[in-house]
Amino acid sequence: MIGLEDVKAAANGLAGVANRTPVLTSRTLDGMVGASVHVKAECFQRGGSFKFRGAYTKIASLDSDARSRGVLAYSSGNHAQAVAIAARLLDTRATILMPEDAPTAKVDATRGYGAEIVTYDRWAESREELGAQLAAERGLALVRPYDDSLVMAGQGTTALELLEQVPDLDLLVVPVGGGGLMAGCSTVAKELRPSIRIVGVEPETGDDTRRSLAAGKRINGGVPRTIADGLQTAEPGELTFEVNRRLVDEIVTASDAEILDAMAFLFDRLKIVTEPSGAIGIAALLAGRIEANGGRVGVVVSGGNVGFARFAELLGRD
Amino acid sequence: MIGLEDVKAAANGLAGVANRTPVLTSRTLDGMVGASVHVKAECFQRGGSFKFRGAYTKIASLDSDARSRGVLAYSSGNHAQAVAIAARLLDTRATILMPEDAPTAKVDATRGYGAEIVTYDRWAESREELGAQLAAERGLALVRPYDDSLVMAGQGTTALELLEQVPDLDLLVVPVGGGGLMAGCSTVAKELRPSIRIVGVEPETGDDTRRSLAAGKRINGGVPRTIADGLQTAEPGELTFEVNRRLVDEIVTASDAEILDAMAFLFDRLKIVTEPSGAIGIAALLAGRIEANGGRVGVVVSGGNVGFARFAELLGRD
Repeated sequence: MIGLEDVKAAANGLAGVANRTPVLTSRTLDGMVGASVHVKAECFQRGGSFKFRGAYTKIASLDSDARSRGVLAYSSGNHAQAVAIAARLLDTRATILMPEDAPTAKVDATRGYGAEIVTYDRWAESREELGAQLAAERGLALVRPYDDSLVMAGQGTTALELLEQVPDLDLLVVPVGGGGLMAGCSTVAKELRPSIRIVGVEPETGDDTRRSLAAGKRINGGVPRTIADGLQTAEPGELTFEVNRRLVDEIVTASDAEILDAMAFLFDRLKIVTEPSGAIGIAALLAGRIEANGGRVGVVVSGGNVGFARFAELLGRD
Repeated sequence: MIGLEDVKAAANGLAGVANRTPVLTSRTLDGMVGASVHVKAECFQRGGSFKFRGAYTKIASLDSDARSRGVLAYSSGNHAQAVAIAARLLDTRATILMPEDAPTAKVDATRGYGAEIVTYDRWAESREELGAQLAAERGLALVRPYDDSLVMAGQGTTALELLEQVPDLDLLVVPVGGGGLMAGCSTVAKELRPSIRIVGVEPETGDDTRRSLAAGKRINGGVPRTIADGLQTAEPGELTFEVNRRLVDEIVTASDAEILDAMAFLFDRLKIVTEPSGAIGIAALLAGRIEANGGRVGVVVSGGNVGFARFAELLGRD
C-alpha cells in the first residue's frame, strides 16, 4: 500500500522535471454536465501523458549500479515513451520490448527519445519470458507500467497537483486501465479530502476493474477491443487492485462512440488534442454516466498521443 | 497612448473573469527553434481567443446609462464572440453587425452567447454607415476591435500575465492584424523589461503594418487573401500604429503554407488546437524568419476558433 507521504516524496522528485499541467475549464462543458468541471490536462505532460510521472519516479529510485546497467519496459504506448524520456534524463539506458507489428510512429517516437527497441513476435513469443531473459542477461531493472508502489506514487502526483490547483473538489474522475493512475490519485484524494467521491472510467468492452470490484477479487476479462488503446488491460494489477478496492467509490464505462464524441468536443470547445483513453472521463460525464449533482468535479484527461492523421481517421473525416 | 498603468487597471478588472491562460513548453519546439520557447496559449481564453480581454475591459468602462442601452460591434469573427460574452457578463445587450454570408457556425456561436445579429449585404451596404445608423437609433456604444485605448489595454494583459509567468524573456512574438494585441503587449513588455525585443508577425499577403512602419505612415494594402482570417486587416489602426511605431522592433511575415505547418506541429506536439491567425507566431519561428539567438522567447498563440471540419479541410485531410 502507498500513502500520501509516498506521493509527496514523488512530487518532490518530479519538481522542475515534470510539467505542472494546467487545469482547464469551459462554461459550455459546465452547462452540459450540470456541474463545475475542472480538467487536469495531462496531454501537456512530458511525453504527452501522465505516464512520465510514474516512470521517472521509479527510475530515479534505482541506485547507481542499477542505473549503470539500464532499465527495461514492455509497452508499445505511452509508458514506453515515458520510460525512454525518464531514462535519458536520469543518465541510464532504456530497452523497450515492443511487438514487431507496433505502429511505426510509436516505435520511431520511442527510439527518438534514445531507447533501444527490441521487437518480438506477439503470436509466437511471450514478452514476459523474453523480458525476463533480457533482464537477466543484461542486468536490467524492470519498470512496470502500473503494478509498482513507486509508479503508483508518481501517478498520484497528478491528483496532488490538481487538489493544490482546485482544493474543494467533490468528485474526482479518473481513467482506469491497469489502475496505477487511479491508485495514486485515490490515495491522495481520500487522504486530503475524505469526503470526495472517486469514480473510475473503463471502456465498455473492458470493464475488468468494475467486475473485479463487484466480485471482490481480480477477474481477467481478456484484452478488450476498444479504440482506447491505453486502457486495453485484461485484468487489474495486484497492487493497484488492493488500493482501488478500498478507495474507489464506483466504476462506470463509456463506449467508443461516446469517447469519439468527447474527443470532438474537447477539440472544438476546449481546444485540446486528446487520445481516446485520455478523453474517456469526459465521455462518461457527457454521456450522463456519472452523477455530478451540481458539484465541483475534477477530471483527469490522461493523454494526447494521437497524430493528426489518426485523429482524423477516428473522427471519420479522412 | 497607453501606459503600463492602464494595462494593470485592465488586469484588475479582468481578475476572476478572464482565464489566466497557461504557458506551454516543448523540448521538441525548443530544439527546432534553437531557443527556449514559451507559448502563451490564448486559445484557452474565454471565447477561444485573446479578444475577450479587450472587449470586456471596454464594456466594463461604460456607465450604467450606456450599458442600459447596449453595445454594437462589427465582426464575423473572434471579436464578435468576445463582445457577446462580455456583454452578457456585464448585463448589457450586444448587437453584432455581420455580413449576410458570414459562416453559419460563427453566426450561431455569437447568437448562442446572447447577442442580436444584424446582417448586411457586404457588396451593397457600408457596415460603417449601417453601424452608425444603428448606434444612433438605439443609442448603442461602439466596441472597436482594436483602435481604442481601453481595448489595447485589455489585450496588453496577455503580456502582463506572460511576464509574470516567465519574467526573463529576451524576445516577444505577437501576431499583428489591426495591431491592438501588439500595442497592448509591447507597452507592457517595454516598460517592464526595456531590453526585450518585440517582433510582430503578419501574413505574407497582408504586411500592411510592416510597410507602414517602413514608410513612417499608415499604408492601406487592401484586404489580403490569407487563411489567417483574424489578420485580414487592410491597414493599421490609427491609435495602434502610434504605439507600435515607437515600440515594435521588427515585423516579419509567414506564408499560409508555413501557418499550416505550424498548426499541424502544434496539434501533434503541443496538443493544442489553433486557428491560422493563432499559429502565425510559431509559423514564423519554425520557418526561421525570426532570429531567436538561443534566448528566452515568448510567443502569443492568440486563438483556437476553428472547428474540426475546417481544421481537417485546411490540413488537406478532408
